[in-house]
Amino acid sequence: MPKIEADNPILAEVFRGKLVESRHAGAIAIADADGRLLLALGDVERKVFPRSAVKALQAIALVESGAADTFGLGEHELAVACASHSGDRVHVEAVRSLLAKAGLDESYLACGAHWPVSERAMRELMRVGRRPQAIHNNCSGKHAGMLAAAMHLGLDPRGYERPEHELQIMIAGIISETCGIALDPGGMGIDGCSLPTWPLPLAALARGFARIGTGRGLQPARARAVERLRQGCFGFPILVAGEGRFDTMAIRALAPDLFVKGGAEGVHCAALPRLGLGLALKIDDGAQRADERVLAEVLAALLPEARSALADQLEAELCNWRGLRVGRISAGPALLQALAALDAALPGKAGAAAR
Amino acid sequence: MPKIEADNPILAEVFRGKLVESRHAGAIAIADADGRLLLALGDVERKVFPRSAVKALQAIALVESGAADTFGLGEHELAVACASHSGDRVHVEAVRSLLAKAGLDESYLACGAHWPVSERAMRELMRVGRRPQAIHNNCSGKHAGMLAAAMHLGLDPRGYERPEHELQIMIAGIISETCGIALDPGGMGIDGCSLPTWPLPLAALARGFARIGTGRGLQPARARAVERLRQGCFGFPILVAGEGRFDTMAIRALAPDLFVKGGAEGVHCAALPRLGLGLALKIDDGAQRADERVLAEVLAALLPEARSALADQLEAELCNWRGLRVGRISAGPALLQALAALDAALPGKAGAAAR
Repeated sequence: MPKIEADNPILAEVFRGKLVESRHAGAIAIADADGRLLLALGDVERKVFPRSAVKALQAIALVESGAADTFGLGEHELAVACASHSGDRVHVEAVRSLLAKAGLDESYLACGAHWPVSERAMRELMRVGRRPQAIHNNCSGKHAGMLAAAMHLGLDPRGYERPEHELQIMIAGIISETCGIALDPGGMGIDGCSLPTWPLPLAALARGFARIGTGRGLQPARARAVERLRQGCFGFPILVAGEGRFDTMAIRALAPDLFVKGGAEGVHCAALPRLGLGLALKIDDGAQRADERVLAEVLAALLPEARSALADQLEAELCNWRGLRVGRISAGPALLQALAALDAALPGKAGAAAR
Repeated sequence: MPKIEADNPILAEVFRGKLVESRHAGAIAIADADGRLLLALGDVERKVFPRSAVKALQAIALVESGAADTFGLGEHELAVACASHSGDRVHVEAVRSLLAKAGLDESYLACGAHWPVSERAMRELMRVGRRPQAIHNNCSGKHAGMLAAAMHLGLDPRGYERPEHELQIMIAGIISETCGIALDPGGMGIDGCSLPTWPLPLAALARGFARIGTGRGLQPARARAVERLRQGCFGFPILVAGEGRFDTMAIRALAPDLFVKGGAEGVHCAALPRLGLGLALKIDDGAQRADERVLAEVLAALLPEARSALADQLEAELCNWRGLRVGRISAGPALLQALAALDAALPGKAGAAAR
């Protein structure tokens, strides 16, 4: 019988009772701003679509171009430009405000519509018999930021989402420079919100996040731009995702030592400014439950205060419709082994100092 | 770096543009009623929780006990007792009717509540400011059937969901006998709807489905019971799942040559009465998109008419929020290779006859 093996290790195991019911393979890279890999678990050179995990990189153009200054954008508007938001009132208002400052309205958003991630917001729309609009799309803040950048640069705000639009060419260049790797035009995919998404190895993504966390390896203007974006997200973690969601909780608890951003299909990236590190992981099958559980485990190994701050995410209990505890999501043995080995290699740790 | 390999082959690949963005490993067993394996791709002896895929087996007690006759249940009520339904009006009415014939009401349902699978039904509840009730739970028909069996047998209808209740002990015995394998009490898990779920190897599940599709290998009373359940599902495919859902579409198009039932965490089972075969598959990571895509591919290899009937499921286009085609889900090379080899071995095929 033919067999093609998955080449990445099992990073998370989903238990029901005493048995593993499901398992999630994947890969993780941790790197510094020079691209030195501190951890490479699984195939970190395989290209993955980072999807929404790189929204902070896509938002660099908004600040670096001068658009944020011209339009007098506040920290909350920069945060929502980096967000995969829940579509609650607070998010919708921040996006509307960003658009208004750029002289535009919702009709320019090319992201398409979906029901808000927030059940409360969805219930409210359904209660009044309304359908979701583009502004409720989790990506509407990113799109509003791109529209503001296009307006400031004198570019056509129609078609801003297309790969051949000058703004997208500029953003692709920023991603390439920040991650220190050439993009492959033939590999480009179209994202859920219709923007281009560029496949990148996890190793390069991790280096890019080390750079946006520290500014190291970036030109001064770009270093200042990523610092403003970080400050926006650290000031308004609720706007980066939403109530009860991983990224909001993690940034709220651990900023300024941590910036995290998830993307669709099991991607999650993080910047750890104090440690000078960046992290990128992808679950092979695309499961969000696994990327969050795995990231919590890695963060707990990197930041001592993360173990208590992310206790619920590490516990990862699974309850059924009557609230009975029926299982849990656990870190896989290969992940735990790799993190134990990583511990000794961390900057400032006894093991590293002794070498 | 430590590596623990996933031991099952990649069965489905999720493309975005030209790149594989995500991949799903898993295992498939196809067997006849004697347990002879026609296909064993991946580890078909590893125990999996069949979850809702075995609702038709759990419903055998309802018919075999005489409860269905005593209460004068119709085909539609038997279908909803085997269902993971969408919670639309048609489903809720069938469950209410089943409960009423047994002299009970919704307050006896122990399945817990969740928003209906059907967006239309969910919108309708939200529009009038209501919360979902147990009757909307996709498992409410199964629970109503168990309650009817308990009433007919003179058992306490309170606590019917507990592993130690006489009805659940009876149902566990039926599952064990039908699949031809002893159950391991230590491995039992609790399902989303609070019922016991028993881990079984895919090979045994496939044999069980060959038996419920044909009646072969079953005592006459049980063979008659599964025939009545089949007829109920074939007569009312809409009640087995719901509009737009895989099981409803597949049964509607391919009955009486096919009965299919999916379960949570990437399990799908099928009975192919004309071929005398049963099928069971599990996606390692639990992804429904993969179990349906893989099942469509296997069915197309087994039933000539399935390729056109399941054309949309085989195409498996992925469209984004603006309706742009951004990718597709494809059968993995290992699956295609295994199915090509299977083709020659099928009963009635030239390859098989020539051997």
